[in-house]
Amino acid sequence: MQEALALAHQAFLNQEVPIGAIVVSNGNIIGRGFNQTLSKGSVLAHAEIIAIEDACKNIRNHRLVDTMLFSTIEPCHMCAKAIIDARISYIIFGAREPKSGSIVSVDNFLDRSFHNHSVSFEEGILKDECKEIMQRFFKARRN
Amino acid sequence: MQEALALAHQAFLNQEVPIGAIVVSNGNIIGRGFNQTLSKGSVLAHAEIIAIEDACKNIRNHRLVDTMLFSTIEPCHMCAKAIIDARISYIIFGAREPKSGSIVSVDNFLDRSFHNHSVSFEEGILKDECKEIMQRFFKARRN
Repeated sequence: MQEALALAHQAFLNQEVPIGAIVVSNGNIIGRGFNQTLSKGSVLAHAEIIAIEDACKNIRNHRLVDTMLFSTIEPCHMCAKAIIDARISYIIFGAREPKSGSIVSVDNFLDRSFHNHSVSFEEGILKDECKEIMQRFFKARRN
Repeated sequence: MQEALALAHQAFLNQEVPIGAIVVSNGNIIGRGFNQTLSKGSVLAHAEIIAIEDACKNIRNHRLVDTMLFSTIEPCHMCAKAIIDARISYIIFGAREPKSGSIVSVDNFLDRSFHNHSVSFEEGILKDECKEIMQRFFKARRN
């Protein structure tokens, strides 16, 4: 999660909402992403989506079997569905996203019975650090 | 929807699940996409996502205000969330997707109270044609 946080810092420096994500396979980082919605001019450029695309490119496979995704912030429905479709096994996120977090905050999306792949999750790893950088970003933007 | 169906045919010719989508603004097509998950090696390469990215690039804006998205098949949660985040006003789809369709089939995702943007929808336009090309594709793949 330290690595995902470092990526969140990179987003912060680029004046983007500071969220970072990595994909890990057998202890190795195979994909990295940080939020780039403004610089890429795309609502799709969430940290998780970019990390998944990076991982798929690196291992030349559109299925990321037996991998884990770490994200500093709870994923939204778009990212959660991409994680499921990519066959990632496990999501670990730092802090909750009360307005759009699909895992525990506004929905229990992973638990829905219609998915054809099951993803487990864990939350709260480096929660304070993941939350603090977000708060610092939004405070700076308000000023 | 004829244009979205033509894009679905293009996916079919590329041996991809035949789904097509367009984004329309003031009667003009500003974005086009067809499913390319295999050729792009990415679970993100759904027709709707590609059409949204194409439209954002063409109008140089990550918000697609006052636009409509036509898709031959009912969008999944990933695409529906991208449509909401892109501020598209209206979704029109041809046929339902019973296993993953997020609008009416497995969920009523657009109706959930947590979204910060409201999207309306209409279904059934050229339903038989949109469904037929899918059935033809899966039948050919089984043989």
